[in-house]
Amino acid sequence: MKSAHEHARVSRPIIALLTDFGLEDPYVGQMKGVLAGLAPEAVLVDISHQVRPFDILQGAFYLAASWPYLPEGTICVGVVDPGVGTARRLAMIRRSGRLLLAPDNGLPALLLGDEADVEAWEFAGRKARAGQKVANTFHGRDILMPLAADLALGVRPKELGAALHPDDLVRPDWARAERAGREIRAHVLHVDRFGNCLLNLSLEKWPMEVLAHAELIRPLLQPLALVRTYADIGPGSFGMLAGSQGYWELAVNQGNAAQLLGLRPGIRIVLQTS
Amino acid sequence: MKSAHEHARVSRPIIALLTDFGLEDPYVGQMKGVLAGLAPEAVLVDISHQVRPFDILQGAFYLAASWPYLPEGTICVGVVDPGVGTARRLAMIRRSGRLLLAPDNGLPALLLGDEADVEAWEFAGRKARAGQKVANTFHGRDILMPLAADLALGVRPKELGAALHPDDLVRPDWARAERAGREIRAHVLHVDRFGNCLLNLSLEKWPMEVLAHAELIRPLLQPLALVRTYADIGPGSFGMLAGSQGYWELAVNQGNAAQLLGLRPGIRIVLQTS
Amino acid sequence: MKSAHEHARVSRPIIALLTDFGLEDPYVGQMKGVLAGLAPEAVLVDISHQVRPFDILQGAFYLAASWPYLPEGTICVGVVDPGVGTARRLAMIRRSGRLLLAPDNGLPALLLGDEADVEAWEFAGRKARAGQKVANTFHGRDILMPLAADLALGVRPKELGAALHPDDLVRPDWARAERAGREIRAHVLHVDRFGNCLLNLSLEKWPMEVLAHAELIRPLLQPLALVRTYADIGPGSFGMLAGSQGYWELAVNQGNAAQLLGLRPGIRIVLQTS
Repeated sequence: MKSAHEHARVSRPIIALLTDFGLEDPYVGQMKGVLAGLAPEAVLVDISHQVRPFDILQGAFYLAASWPYLPEGTICVGVVDPGVGTARRLAMIRRSGRLLLAPDNGLPALLLGDEADVEAWEFAGRKARAGQKVANTFHGRDILMPLAADLALGVRPKELGAALHPDDLVRPDWARAERAGREIRAHVLHVDRFGNCLLNLSLEKWPMEVLAHAELIRPLLQPLALVRTYADIGPGSFGMLAGSQGYWELAVNQGNAAQLLGLRPGIRIVLQTS
Repeated sequence: MKSAHEHARVSRPIIALLTDFGLEDPYVGQMKGVLAGLAPEAVLVDISHQVRPFDILQGAFYLAASWPYLPEGTICVGVVDPGVGTARRLAMIRRSGRLLLAPDNGLPALLLGDEADVEAWEFAGRKARAGQKVANTFHGRDILMPLAADLALGVRPKELGAALHPDDLVRPDWARAERAGREIRAHVLHVDRFGNCLLNLSLEKWPMEVLAHAELIRPLLQPLALVRTYADIGPGSFGMLAGSQGYWELAVNQGNAAQLLGLRPGIRIVLQTS
Repeated sequence: MKSAHEHARVSRPIIALLTDFGLEDPYVGQMKGVLAGLAPEAVLVDISHQVRPFDILQGAFYLAASWPYLPEGTICVGVVDPGVGTARRLAMIRRSGRLLLAPDNGLPALLLGDEADVEAWEFAGRKARAGQKVANTFHGRDILMPLAADLALGVRPKELGAALHPDDLVRPDWARAERAGREIRAHVLHVDRFGNCLLNLSLEKWPMEVLAHAELIRPLLQPLALVRTYADIGPGSFGMLAGSQGYWELAVNQGNAAQLLGLRPGIRIVLQTS
């Protein structure tokens, strides 16, 4: 059966945007102007344009946390690109039926993993359209948006570039979480405004059974309660709970876990399972 | 006659959003992603996402001030929700042909009043769709957006919940304005960047005749000139004028009325009519 | 041949917005609500709403830099309007197939010049629609958006106002760049976060040949290298390069050009060509 969803994808392509451009300058507006000209039927979803400048980890986290909420068929353009203008690679990555166009600088890293449903291509072209110039410093507007429009109108990634093996894409340390014996070695992805620490342990891949009775052993020895809400953590205690962004969160009762443990995004932590 | 407007509502439902999520985090983007999947034809209007965190009064004011500028048929989702995850009620309120979905925590309060055209329903369901989870802390994305999409696609509020009497909805003190003899007891809704104080006296319900020759008697005894523009207020004097947001504003010539009178949102003031 | 673009313009009008209203208050949302009611098929492009309050120069620069990236046929509404409510003129300006609706206070100035393709009209009407009021302080919502909707639905500028000669529009000093003998007298339009100074010398009108071997003579005597990227400027040297916003930029190797030269938006500089 053809779902309502597939129908939507055909009639109105969905384009999602994530950048570190902010909303003061007219850069995001120029990207949207280009898209409006090439694919006026597209539905636009802004994930965020206020990623901290050049903060690839934050951008990668926002992408991965938002991925399940983008409709199937969405074409997502991600621009956090300290290396714009250099030889860094532009990649197209398909994961769970959505496509990401982004520099291969770690921004796609949290969408990878050992999933069977990841495919990737290198985008080699940067030929300008007739009458258009490509600015060395603004590939988001001059290369990625026209590319997104082509894909929205039905061009397939394999027509635009050679296949890449997902293992060849850049994967920074902070994207790694692994089990070694009784240890789980993970990284902090994000600290929210309450000091709760989101770990790169997705709810999907790390079920509750694995984490039950886990203790924190680095940066500190500390038992952890597996709880349903922050309020369920006992006074002065640390706990882990399933957060709304799809990752396990480390929290403390009435306190700031990040400050108490000296954690910030990118830092490694180690858990020990029983 | 079927207006152009009704036609628009049928062909492209209009969804308006108001939240206190800010634009840094990807939360608003996730809400929009959900909507793009379920109702890709919807036209989206962002009222504001920068309501001060948990400031229900500010959110209520933004909603009420924007209400007349949302097309008839608009479905508006309001999320300023300190009590998310607790037993607080989710309400659907119809006023003047537009629908608000919001927690019943005062956020709808300024849309109520004694109007004959207010209807309300309690939304009881929070069943997740197949394959979806409901996060305890993110009802805006997991409950309200799917609900808005259902309504946009033609489901009627009464199919989704039991009728509520509008008098049973939460109405904080700051939503009350009343006449008692010669006194008008009102509240400050908003202080703009110039210090002008918007009162919860709407231009619609409180015509000029009622306020002509009114004096301020609390927090201070002070005659008030009813003027057309700020510049018409005499030197050192206070005045009232009809503001662009649909409410009477208290202002002072070349000065900051809020500072001079010690006013801020939520504070009660009293006028005396002649 | 009818381009895909013209087709798009007919089926879905494109409306672009630039204001200094910010995104906290609900003002931009109210403008979008009005448009959603009158022209629900319109595609909306936000150029920026965070122009510094009342900063006409910054607004003019954002408009001119974004102009080539708005699709042909776009109707752009610009609101940076310190004189709202006074007798200042509202203008409609057509340049390169796009239309700008804005106060004639300098906001359109960088779109003018000696181009043969500029046309202008004065918008005289401010009659409210049936049942609507015009707020003295919010012409963007009450006059410009309904006007944009009329134009989007096919009304032509000449049906709405008398023709203006482009030379009669306000052109502040900062919009002027001229050649006088060997001198080029220009102004700084924008200082980016790195201190690079964008000059009102557009890449289109001021080709590389003219600027090759130019020296800065005011505010300082300084040779300038014409370079392709910032990295090509020699240590301690100043250079000029073609920026992504369509203007020549003055930059210094590993330093802040604006600070070193005491430049800020609006300041005049003089170059000497060989």
